[in-house]
Amino acid sequence: MNKNAFRQLSYGVYVVSTWDKGRATGCTANSVMQITSDPATIAVSINHDNYTNQCIRDTGRFAVSILGEHSNPGIIGAFGFKSGRDNNKFDEVKSEVRSYLPIVSDACAYLVCELIDKMETSTHTVFLGKVLDADVLKKDDPMTYAYYHNVIKGKSPKNAPTYIAEEQPVQQSTPAAKYACSVCGYVYEGEVPFEELPDDYVCPICGQPKSVFVKK
Amino acid sequence: MNKNAFRQLSYGVYVVSTWDKGRATGCTANSVMQITSDPATIAVSINHDNYTNQCIRDTGRFAVSILGEHSNPGIIGAFGFKSGRDNNKFDEVKSEVRSYLPIVSDACAYLVCELIDKMETSTHTVFLGKVLDADVLKKDDPMTYAYYHNVIKGKSPKNAPTYIAEEQPVQQSTPAAKYACSVCGYVYEGEVPFEELPDDYVCPICGQPKSVFVKK
Repeated sequence: MNKNAFRQLSYGVYVVSTWDKGRATGCTANSVMQITSDPATIAVSINHDNYTNQCIRDTGRFAVSILGEHSNPGIIGAFGFKSGRDNNKFDEVKSEVRSYLPIVSDACAYLVCELIDKMETSTHTVFLGKVLDADVLKKDDPMTYAYYHNVIKGKSPKNAPTYIAEEQPVQQSTPAAKYACSVCGYVYEGEVPFEELPDDYVCPICGQPKSVFVKK
Repeated sequence: MNKNAFRQLSYGVYVVSTWDKGRATGCTANSVMQITSDPATIAVSINHDNYTNQCIRDTGRFAVSILGEHSNPGIIGAFGFKSGRDNNKFDEVKSEVRSYLPIVSDACAYLVCELIDKMETSTHTVFLGKVLDADVLKKDDPMTYAYYHNVIKGKSPKNAPTYIAEEQPVQQSTPAAKYACSVCGYVYEGEVPFEELPDDYVCPICGQPKSVFVKK
């Protein structure tokens, strides 16, 4: 089996959010798709290990914030690569409440859902949600997973269904050494040589310090 | 609820295929996503009214051909907008058998799956398939649903989850009258005025004759 075939499936980049006993929480996700049109339902796949999975079961509600190409890529870092169990992820981004659910303000659209069914797999739950409310927040092209990979140069966390263990870095046309964030995979390509960046430089995706960057 | 928010979800363009008592059949689909990575599983959503839905139940196997931007857009017409019950859709496209399942040769990649679970909704079945085989067929960017809409200018058939009844045609920057295929929505934008096209002109997407085109 050639696992590269899986990379040809197209996805968006989303924040799936809900409440954890009155505290907003959520995680990044790629696997969201509309299932029926009337009534409108969507399916969302969330890893069992993601704290958000349990919170969706507890509340029976979830929201999907659809990130756009112009959404701050730091949102992906704020909601990915760390657990909502120990982090107040919503503290790091501008948010608001729509139809009683927390959403990310810098998304291009959102959907608020009531959980109506679920399908279990070995590592993920596919949640089926009836859409109670939806709106467009700003005019933007939705961020695709390909855009995140190819333009922002991020990679998948290990609990994403799209994670491929032998994932290879994107080939660069220039032979110069690059520095990559060892947490989220972001590749620094600024004009200032990486070594000359200030000590308080942090990864624009996941917010980790300069020290976690490794030479590629 | 603003249904335009649903259009910000990202999808690819796929042909989901299987056998119908020894005859290859299939349908177009947008809703395919990977669920687990090891073992690799994918979820595919298919309308109850699609003949392929029953055939997948009967055989317990299905394949997904992932269309690329350079795949012939006529494939979308061959597999959409008409039923596999009455049409030998695979007669119209070059195909081959991989791991005992029919696939579209002009796709950029394929996945062959064993049906392991399903979730029912009011109009669609979400099939969960364990991937038995997968490969890349050619180097191409996968065709996204946005590309299909914005570049090829196709629209959704009525039994697609992404269908929106009040769907508006893509705004054109030029005020000249356009002709659109009333079956699949393809908008003719060639340099030769539509009226001057030969009588045997057919829609490049769905293959319908010139007579089904309507002035917009």
